Amino acid sequence: MNFDLHAAHAALEDAIHHLPLYGTPAELYDPMRYIMSLGGKRMRPMLVLLGKYAVTGTWQDVVQPAIAVEMFHNFTLMHDDIMDRAPLRRGRATVHKKWDENVALLSGDAMLVKTYQQWLETVPPGFLLGLLKRFCQIAVQVCQGQQMDMNFEARKRVTMKEYLEMIRMKTAVLIGFSLEAGARLGHASEETLDQLYHFGELLGIGFQLKDDLLDVYGQPDKFGKLMGGDIIANKKTFLLVRALELANAMQMRELDYWLTVEEFDPQTKVDAVKEIYDQLAIKEHTENAMNEYFEKAFATLEQVAILPERRQVLREFARAIIERDQ
Amino acid sequence: MNFDLHAAHAALEDAIHHLPLYGTPAELYDPMRYIMSLGGKRMRPMLVLLGKYAVTGTWQDVVQPAIAVEMFHNFTLMHDDIMDRAPLRRGRATVHKKWDENVALLSGDAMLVKTYQQWLETVPPGFLLGLLKRFCQIAVQVCQGQQMDMNFEARKRVTMKEYLEMIRMKTAVLIGFSLEAGARLGHASEETLDQLYHFGELLGIGFQLKDDLLDVYGQPDKFGKLMGGDIIANKKTFLLVRALELANAMQMRELDYWLTVEEFDPQTKVDAVKEIYDQLAIKEHTENAMNEYFEKAFATLEQVAILPERRQVLREFARAIIERDQ
Repeated sequence: MNFDLHAAHAALEDAIHHLPLYGTPAELYDPMRYIMSLGGKRMRPMLVLLGKYAVTGTWQDVVQPAIAVEMFHNFTLMHDDIMDRAPLRRGRATVHKKWDENVALLSGDAMLVKTYQQWLETVPPGFLLGLLKRFCQIAVQVCQGQQMDMNFEARKRVTMKEYLEMIRMKTAVLIGFSLEAGARLGHASEETLDQLYHFGELLGIGFQLKDDLLDVYGQPDKFGKLMGGDIIANKKTFLLVRALELANAMQMRELDYWLTVEEFDPQTKVDAVKEIYDQLAIKEHTENAMNEYFEKAFATLEQVAILPERRQVLREFARAIIERDQ
Repeated sequence: MNFDLHAAHAALEDAIHHLPLYGTPAELYDPMRYIMSLGGKRMRPMLVLLGKYAVTGTWQDVVQPAIAVEMFHNFTLMHDDIMDRAPLRRGRATVHKKWDENVALLSGDAMLVKTYQQWLETVPPGFLLGLLKRFCQIAVQVCQGQQMDMNFEARKRVTMKEYLEMIRMKTAVLIGFSLEAGARLGHASEETLDQLYHFGELLGIGFQLKDDLLDVYGQPDKFGKLMGGDIIANKKTFLLVRALELANAMQMRELDYWLTVEEFDPQTKVDAVKEIYDQLAIKEHTENAMNEYFEKAFATLEQVAILPERRQVLREFARAIIERDQ
């Protein structure tokens, strides 16, 4: 049996649509349904389905647990948007803008509890303890990654090693966990779980580098957020960290100027920083690093003891993540 | 074997002191240890021990799970203090004042995950599914209660029924759950669990009415917070809701004045509102309602099928909660 991506996506959307996120007060539940309905690629729950498919050839029975990962991801988005003071998410108002910060804080809290409820109600009891223990480990790491990201904002310099560790925790571990969780529900061996996790983690780091690239070099109209938003916010991205490593004295002075100036025209700042990136071939440096992670990911995938046609499905899905332009 | 309150308290403090709340970044973990170290009565974990003791005569083996309830309670305090913009907690700076709001938000998130980890690592597997399902239900209700409380802030009037439902969810359900959780870990029957939960819930409502009373009529120097803080903040307490029910036209005009005036001397406002409370005998009305809840609680306790000497221990603990003056 082949993997029908379209059917899987439809099953996920249907399950999300039917989640029991109703109750009073409305301010607690409406934001959960709102953020879950904003769409997105549903990459993480899809990876749960793919992890299950990789080891058993079926995915239909893990649609409900897969949704728990998407709920957790959306909980992190709701709280991250408060911390980042982000006005938009996928082109729509963020929860704390549409309601207020207290609502986003509390609705997010309740959504994290609802995530655990989703696990508890949909995972067969025999898998529950192992899965929940791993999920808690991962969830704590996601918090650690977000705290590192916030700490970086207040710092003038961040090493490449620190940056990569931050995105590993903030983004990549959940992607690795998603694949692992699906495989876990398919009775995979510890070795297979470990390999699929690492494939996902490497893919996740590459995925974030792509995200950093798209902020500066993506298609403006396809992306929900402002082009160069990371530059405007002085976000420590791979591009900036690499540029600060490579800059000569004059380029460094100019970067430092843009990193410290308080009043500026956004487009002028984006253009000026992008000009330095271009001088330093930062796009190519980032693409090279990204491709290295993707290659390591594919090499890890090769080692997983699964049927070749299922490996091919994972390869194609990873390829689509790599080649996305938004 | 009798219940040694002193030994139980020491065991809880020792377990809290040895919690593995360490890691990087420090901003994520330091606030957890800070808020857990602020002390307090440790009423909720003590109720877990008492619930276990009530059905088995021992409590030593549930000290670790009991701490999970205290962790959850402190997570709610960390986030509630952000929402209430509270500067002080037990006489010390709140987490968002000592660090910042983002740290309090994220450290609280991680602490909620750590709460689940504490359950997962310390509850015997046979009890885990039932306990976690109940805990999730309770945790969602606590969020609902907090959201109701926030909604009340923006409203001019709140009915007594709404007020009582809010404090039931925000405060009382966790107190009921604490007793129930301990009894659950002692293999109690469904009937006993239900009765102990309801005893705790009724006790919890009385406890909150006492809290409302102490804000206005407590001992200033013993209490960590400003006297009359609820009056200054226009908090919808039992006292205010009852006063608005009983006020004549002139008293209503004065209450409405104090509820809407934006610039005022705090002490003048507290004195003026307290004067109306005194005219309406609000202290006595609140005490009567509180005592009714406590009496219902004790009547429920009488029905629980436990040994008389253990019932007596619960009775004495409840009595201490009732008679606290801070």
